[in-house]
Amino acid sequence: MPDPIRFYFDFASPYAYFAATRIDALAKSFGRTVEWRPILLWAVFRAHGVAPPMDVAVRRDYLLHDMARSADFFGVPYRAPAKLALSTHLAARLYHAISETEPSKAVAFANRVFAAFFVEQKDISQSDTLLALAADAGIDADAAAEGMTAGRPLLEQAVAGAIADKVVGSPFFLVDGEGFFGADRLPQLRWFLEKPA
Amino acid sequence: MPDPIRFYFDFASPYAYFAATRIDALAKSFGRTVEWRPILLWAVFRAHGVAPPMDVAVRRDYLLHDMARSADFFGVPYRAPAKLALSTHLAARLYHAISETEPSKAVAFANRVFAAFFVEQKDISQSDTLLALAADAGIDADAAAEGMTAGRPLLEQAVAGAIADKVVGSPFFLVDGEGFFGADRLPQLRWFLEKPA
Repeated sequence: MPDPIRFYFDFASPYAYFAATRIDALAKSFGRTVEWRPILLWAVFRAHGVAPPMDVAVRRDYLLHDMARSADFFGVPYRAPAKLALSTHLAARLYHAISETEPSKAVAFANRVFAAFFVEQKDISQSDTLLALAADAGIDADAAAEGMTAGRPLLEQAVAGAIADKVVGSPFFLVDGEGFFGADRLPQLRWFLEKPA
Repeated sequence: MPDPIRFYFDFASPYAYFAATRIDALAKSFGRTVEWRPILLWAVFRAHGVAPPMDVAVRRDYLLHDMARSADFFGVPYRAPAKLALSTHLAARLYHAISETEPSKAVAFANRVFAAFFVEQKDISQSDTLLALAADAGIDADAAAEGMTAGRPLLEQAVAGAIADKVVGSPFFLVDGEGFFGADRLPQLRWFLEKPA
């Protein structure tokens, strides 16, 4: 069994959302699984000394337009988020807590968070929103409420792992030691997996 | 006849080199021509307040690896440049001068510069190197020597145009008012051209 593909992302990243709609099927076609690892991109950027790309007006304008166009290109539903950037630490903590206690529901929860943020224009920084999304994914209310605290050290570990793995943006894929940054690297990731070892 | 595709690039950008090997054929398949416009990316970045991506160690490491891997992915010859970054103002001035006086030779010169820098590890910041490359493209030696001065205002115009067109990196394609940044946006550029108007 080949190693899993590690999928680092921030829940506030539209490009991560686009990639999330494809990565499991891509991995599966090569007999691989995917380790979903939500992180806090700002914390990784801060550790590396990288300025957030949305800070510069001309790049922010480009990216906002490119996000909407890329959604069309990927053929996924998309409405510009109500807030961007916003805090994703509660969503990420909850993901990691679910991943430990009910791993079979974790990816469904992540996909539910993406849809809430990028299609339904919900504010995924709010704990009550996240509780409702967890319920949609079949997570018990008490477990979800607790997960937003219990997941804290797990998220800290994931962020430390992302820094060690030299993550430079979201989404970032690590496979057999090779890093691929961006939803636009999916064709190259496929090409890499197809190459004879 | 539909409008041409404007192709902004810096001669020191490997991703521009990869895109340069494809853009003319892509445009032609949609009945379009390509306006090649070398610029000085640092000058555009400075005007927009963008930090050069290679300034941060972790991103520089990622990009250097990604450049070599992307060359394989695009199926083009590539050897890591002897110097990176380096000054491309003489190459760009000469391109613009040739483009005015002998337009039919300009793209051949640009492709020669890319090959010299990204395959032959030549130092394209040097005027004697550029004179030899111009000769390879059939440009008279005196005209080439003069072009490195005469092209100055033309390059300044191109840089001002890039700033006005909100260029955010190299390569950058502008088609029917839509901007596409990166060699990895070529599939999306094709998709855009295929869409019914």
